[in-house]
Amino acid sequence: MAKRNSKIASNGRASKPRARATAGDDTVITALHLPSEKLSPEMAAYFAKCEEKLGFVPNVLKAYTFDLTKLSAFVAMYNDLMLAPSGLSKLEREMIAVAVSAHNRCYYCLVAHGAAVRQLSGDPALGELMAMNYRAARLSQREGAMLDFAVKLSAEPWRVEEEDREELRRAGFTDRDIWDIAAIAGFFNMSNRVASATDMRPNSVYHGQAR
Amino acid sequence: MAKRNSKIASNGRASKPRARATAGDDTVITALHLPSEKLSPEMAAYFAKCEEKLGFVPNVLKAYTFDLTKLSAFVAMYNDLMLAPSGLSKLEREMIAVAVSAHNRCYYCLVAHGAAVRQLSGDPALGELMAMNYRAARLSQREGAMLDFAVKLSAEPWRVEEEDREELRRAGFTDRDIWDIAAIAGFFNMSNRVASATDMRPNSVYHGQAR
Amino acid sequence: MAKRNSKIASNGRASKPRARATAGDDTVITALHLPSEKLSPEMAAYFAKCEEKLGFVPNVLKAYTFDLTKLSAFVAMYNDLMLAPSGLSKLEREMIAVAVSAHNRCYYCLVAHGAAVRQLSGDPALGELMAMNYRAARLSQREGAMLDFAVKLSAEPWRVEEEDREELRRAGFTDRDIWDIAAIAGFFNMSNRVASATDMRPNSVYHGQAR
Amino acid sequence: MAKRNSKIASNGRASKPRARATAGDDTVITALHLPSEKLSPEMAAYFAKCEEKLGFVPNVLKAYTFDLTKLSAFVAMYNDLMLAPSGLSKLEREMIAVAVSAHNRCYYCLVAHGAAVRQLSGDPALGELMAMNYRAARLSQREGAMLDFAVKLSAEPWRVEEEDREELRRAGFTDRDIWDIAAIAGFFNMSNRVASATDMRPNSVYHGQAR
Amino acid sequence: MAKRNSKIASNGRASKPRARATAGDDTVITALHLPSEKLSPEMAAYFAKCEEKLGFVPNVLKAYTFDLTKLSAFVAMYNDLMLAPSGLSKLEREMIAVAVSAHNRCYYCLVAHGAAVRQLSGDPALGELMAMNYRAARLSQREGAMLDFAVKLSAEPWRVEEEDREELRRAGFTDRDIWDIAAIAGFFNMSNRVASATDMRPNSVYHGQAR
Amino acid sequence: MAKRNSKIASNGRASKPRARATAGDDTVITALHLPSEKLSPEMAAYFAKCEEKLGFVPNVLKAYTFDLTKLSAFVAMYNDLMLAPSGLSKLEREMIAVAVSAHNRCYYCLVAHGAAVRQLSGDPALGELMAMNYRAARLSQREGAMLDFAVKLSAEPWRVEEEDREELRRAGFTDRDIWDIAAIAGFFNMSNRVASATDMRPNSVYHGQAR
Repeated sequence: MAKRNSKIASNGRASKPRARATAGDDTVITALHLPSEKLSPEMAAYFAKCEEKLGFVPNVLKAYTFDLTKLSAFVAMYNDLMLAPSGLSKLEREMIAVAVSAHNRCYYCLVAHGAAVRQLSGDPALGELMAMNYRAARLSQREGAMLDFAVKLSAEPWRVEEEDREELRRAGFTDRDIWDIAAIAGFFNMSNRVASATDMRPNSVYHGQAR
Repeated sequence: MAKRNSKIASNGRASKPRARATAGDDTVITALHLPSEKLSPEMAAYFAKCEEKLGFVPNVLKAYTFDLTKLSAFVAMYNDLMLAPSGLSKLEREMIAVAVSAHNRCYYCLVAHGAAVRQLSGDPALGELMAMNYRAARLSQREGAMLDFAVKLSAEPWRVEEEDREELRRAGFTDRDIWDIAAIAGFFNMSNRVASATDMRPNSVYHGQAR
Repeated sequence: MAKRNSKIASNGRASKPRARATAGDDTVITALHLPSEKLSPEMAAYFAKCEEKLGFVPNVLKAYTFDLTKLSAFVAMYNDLMLAPSGLSKLEREMIAVAVSAHNRCYYCLVAHGAAVRQLSGDPALGELMAMNYRAARLSQREGAMLDFAVKLSAEPWRVEEEDREELRRAGFTDRDIWDIAAIAGFFNMSNRVASATDMRPNSVYHGQAR
Repeated sequence: MAKRNSKIASNGRASKPRARATAGDDTVITALHLPSEKLSPEMAAYFAKCEEKLGFVPNVLKAYTFDLTKLSAFVAMYNDLMLAPSGLSKLEREMIAVAVSAHNRCYYCLVAHGAAVRQLSGDPALGELMAMNYRAARLSQREGAMLDFAVKLSAEPWRVEEEDREELRRAGFTDRDIWDIAAIAGFFNMSNRVASATDMRPNSVYHGQAR
Repeated sequence: MAKRNSKIASNGRASKPRARATAGDDTVITALHLPSEKLSPEMAAYFAKCEEKLGFVPNVLKAYTFDLTKLSAFVAMYNDLMLAPSGLSKLEREMIAVAVSAHNRCYYCLVAHGAAVRQLSGDPALGELMAMNYRAARLSQREGAMLDFAVKLSAEPWRVEEEDREELRRAGFTDRDIWDIAAIAGFFNMSNRVASATDMRPNSVYHGQAR
Repeated sequence: MAKRNSKIASNGRASKPRARATAGDDTVITALHLPSEKLSPEMAAYFAKCEEKLGFVPNVLKAYTFDLTKLSAFVAMYNDLMLAPSGLSKLEREMIAVAVSAHNRCYYCLVAHGAAVRQLSGDPALGELMAMNYRAARLSQREGAMLDFAVKLSAEPWRVEEEDREELRRAGFTDRDIWDIAAIAGFFNMSNRVASATDMRPNSVYHGQAR
């Protein structure tokens, strides 16, 4: 059963929930009290680049600032998986991110990567579909096979067998592509859990992006 | 494994998914071919009122036009549950609708009623939270108890016992309120399934509302 | 863990459970205290017709008498789905009702609609099979496809895709039939939850019918 | 998806399912073709005693006649658990049998032991409640704790811990009683699976007993 | 949530867990206090034979000594299933035992029968594979079909249908073999639950056997 | 259903499975054909250090050699989580690794990290307990709370709420410790999936370590 924020008065009738649901999401980023370290020059530059390109620093990065070694490791792995050359397009990678996060019902990742799908595809509804039920989207065979694999791997990793890899090969994926699908699905199975464990809150700006 | 739309070419690399995900959502409303009956004067007036107040007729109503008796029964039950006087506010009722639909991963209902939560609350993020994971929202005790009950009733109805009703009473709900929570949760457990069984598509206009 | 009726003494050894299990099922119909409204002439006539044809008024109808609008909406939808002309026989519709209610382990609906299957089929065991495990019954391909669809739609509505509808078409069902299967399965997913949420008790007369 | 009996014609519309659902249940007891051995004098006497006391030999015993060693072992274990002196009454033991078999949706055991609950309790509805949802029955604290333990042990045996045994002790059970509850729940988790694996059919006479 | 042994001091940091995890496994065999009966000559001889052949008496046998009738019934059924002539080799039977026990996460049975798989196969890793995820082992079609059936029967017995038996027949199994697979899988679904319900501890000697 | 290695003859009876189950685990590390890149001086030194300290290079590292950027990112994150200073002991971190991998039934991680638990604890049975069912181990309150959190986060991350963090704080964990528990549990939820998706095989040497 859900535990509730004791700071919210319960007066028998809901009233004025306006903006209450996410109040403070941009200032209190997680439920853990972990003081930030001073950014290294490298990370300071990276944060500055985020500000320049995105207009803000994603909260997940701020959440990691309590330990720069962890921050660097996270950034290195994330950037390689989501931005480095791959047989998967950036949009496909973000679609995996959102479909996996939907399986795990992760608020942070659905908000942040749902916005990315909307932006990369130019299709506002595609982000919604990935976050709600990817099976309801009009997908190509390639996209469908990719997401079926990623979601099965999230739900029942112990049941993934050679036949599942063969299904991807039949849809045109190379062995390297299969690794990338698995690695991205795996990464979000990690991030979803860190976010849920710490009640990580997405930057509020994401909500309105590319609608 | 997901079956794919055979009309979409799969050429090994995804390209231009722009707006493809929901293409035709406003014209082909379900996967069933059921010719519409001529609306009765009463239903024609109701549809006209929808056009006037909402600017469009919700696709679920169009989906039922193949049989006016079914359309009338659906409208009567829906309007009573969601619009008639109740101890639950209209926003609370829509929050139940979306949290239940999230449990059932129903694309139609999440899109349509997510928009309603955004509009009634004036809080765009609240609709997202209900659709993604209501447990991540800053809820009052009343709201939390209400959604915990509705989602448990959706997931494991056979495990709902007196203790669950007592939890609602402790949160300030009357027995009549408990009926309404159960009836609304029940209704969306029905509608979610009719929508999923028929691949019902939401009006595309919902996506941008109240963002 | 189950919460127990505090009015039942627990003296360390079970004794005389005779008729205790369902004691009061015909007088205290739900766990909610909701005073009945005076029946409208239309509903009074409907209840009289029940008395005449069945010998009693089903408890679910009595449960709704606290609000005549809700009662009328329920009756309209129920009668259309279960009694109006359809490509599905009345027995088939009742088989769906029981198989879905078995998935949801709903005491009220299993008792009431199990009796209906026994009566309509003249086969006492068929009601038992639907309530226990429809897969153990000797079913025609048509019946099997119908119940597989209805139960999958109950268990994992988000996984119902075009292939599932195709399976029904291969078994001889029209698109209109598919709607009816979905609508009936959906309706009992609603009713099962209202009954479980309110601890609705079936009329005791059902137990012995058509054995 | 359910595989269907190819001997049943599917002509597009269900017709005359009367008594078809269980046709042959008393002659073809399992889906396996295993010729019976000649009964030993001991087992012949036991079968004769069944005929005398019950009026028939339970099909599960006939199913084991292909191997007398297995038959003897089954009978020895069954009779000790269900009939030997115990802190649990015979009715309580049958209630466990049915509640466990309901969890496992085992047609054979629900029919045969549902009849036993009806007979031992003199309460036809109690058998139905155990088979449908034991949580809906008006149970004493003792009965409730007993069935909660047995069903949890059936569903998630790996999660049973000391706290669960303590709950039984608080309800008045001794350590020996706890063993008996566990052993009976365990036994039906075995028998349910042998019955389901072999499509074992219950004697048709059970259906009408003690209604 | 796991309840913890109150006799273990919790001083904020774990220290010296050495051999603590299984401390006493050879002396306190279950969590139930049930005094042993004096062994019958037959059972005393059987225990002596265990000492002679294995070097120890398996704890499960000691656990049953509180009631010699139960002990005898258990031994008779166990020995028939695991040691009597069968179309299944002894190794195959132990593989079923471990794969089923892995599904049920039963510590006692995984330790004791994992050792048996290692000994019978001469392949230490095979025991690990059965205990961890049998799908990761390089299995013959026969072994794979056998374990798929046994594990499905453990997880969802209500979904086992004729098609599952046909799959076994296609892999070369006779109807008698199918009974044996079902009976062994069923037996460990029983034993796993008795062991979990009583916190049964395996003899510590098993851990090092045949590594 | 499990797909089987087509290179293994199926002759109706299993024969000589000896060492077959893991044949080739040290040479064919995954099911994907991905040629290795030449190691950078930094990674060559790291591999040499593994050879020196462990006597071998863990297969997971070899699996990543097809792309040095990915290898470096994996090593950086792994070493920080498992070896850097933390409020959690190295044994505690390995216990989380194994308990999470047991939930996900990951053969690679259970073998490799099970060995680590045995080595760090000097208690061979502790590794088995973590891999089989951590709830059966005699744990301190601290260890129990830590593993309960990690496994709930693995199974149902969407249900982790403030109450779960409070439970950890009551067991003596700081907010930084909570992050570390979450991050390690998250990391193995990633690694388990990469290993399962690619059929990653553990070095055979692990099996006999610290028994």
